[in-house]
Amino acid sequence: MPLKNTTQKKKVSDDDIAKIVEAARMAPSSYGIQPCRVIAVSNQELKEKMVPVAWNQKIVAECSHVLIFAAWDKYTSERVHNIFDYTTDQRGTPRGSAFGSHTEAIANSQIEMTDEEALQDTSRQACIAFAMAIAQAAELKIDNTPMGGFTNSEMDELLSLNEKGLKSVYMLALGYRQTEGDWLVDLKKVRTPTEEFLIEMK
Amino acid sequence: MPLKNTTQKKKVSDDDIAKIVEAARMAPSSYGIQPCRVIAVSNQELKEKMVPVAWNQKIVAECSHVLIFAAWDKYTSERVHNIFDYTTDQRGTPRGSAFGSHTEAIANSQIEMTDEEALQDTSRQACIAFAMAIAQAAELKIDNTPMGGFTNSEMDELLSLNEKGLKSVYMLALGYRQTEGDWLVDLKKVRTPTEEFLIEMK
Repeated sequence: MPLKNTTQKKKVSDDDIAKIVEAARMAPSSYGIQPCRVIAVSNQELKEKMVPVAWNQKIVAECSHVLIFAAWDKYTSERVHNIFDYTTDQRGTPRGSAFGSHTEAIANSQIEMTDEEALQDTSRQACIAFAMAIAQAAELKIDNTPMGGFTNSEMDELLSLNEKGLKSVYMLALGYRQTEGDWLVDLKKVRTPTEEFLIEMK
Repeated sequence: MPLKNTTQKKKVSDDDIAKIVEAARMAPSSYGIQPCRVIAVSNQELKEKMVPVAWNQKIVAECSHVLIFAAWDKYTSERVHNIFDYTTDQRGTPRGSAFGSHTEAIANSQIEMTDEEALQDTSRQACIAFAMAIAQAAELKIDNTPMGGFTNSEMDELLSLNEKGLKSVYMLALGYRQTEGDWLVDLKKVRTPTEEFLIEMK
């Protein structure tokens, strides 16, 4: 589909991308381990290669930036201790004391997970960071499309995530909407009614 | 530990709880299916029963409200079509047309997941709603503690989630902090440095 107007080409500023990534970086995580990373793709050639991986959704090429949220493929002693040591160093407290006398037990509880358990755990935390980025983008009035519709293994291959010890989880297309031709733009936003979504135990 | 001051007893207002739940309810989800629910517990007796399930973390009893974020245990045809039909009804469009000619293929892609695949998928989406609630609570200046430290199967049992077709994922303790005796309150908030968290592909 040819570009219909120039707004589609408007790029999100570096400053705004930095704010969105920062919201993700500040997300809470289990024991502060932060087992996720963000890959920010603005390279046009690479975005075009992502289209077939994303089930031919052209938005990936047409948007300004794509942020891929990726989770650690496993917990390792090195990874966990690196962040614990960084934390205590930053706080000026002794290494090994991030959680007082529980520190090693906590580290072991993560390291001893099977790879499958670990990926479930790390990917859930990537989703928390993902949502913080969505909220921040919305606050900045930057249109964003959260996307799960892509083949994760192919994305991991394309972005060389395996060699970084990462697995893609979700991605976020960022830009400024072209309302013309958008089938959703005039449709009501619908959510499960509160009386069904919320279960109160007072 | 005895209560040290009255601020600990201050309850979060119903209005603020409603805003926090609403942020979760409005969270995006795959195909708008919203495979998660929020259980809001303010009943003191029940909160006390949750303490041993939450590895004896007393905050669960001492806080104002606990929100449990739970995910569908599986996708079923009934569940998926219920929300698709509700969506089209709300939009005044024909049933079966939520995603045009792709509607049934999309429904099947969810329904055909194994229970294990489905729970991975639904729990990731529960985490997106969870993060939206955290962000909303922070904006309202309500202290909140995201918690993964509890035994999910025991929580599901205590709250009768299995019979509702739900599995607990994470929970959020809400209230107003008692700074006295808080070991973390004066410690620097530490996160993975941006140069490590962010991978740019320009």
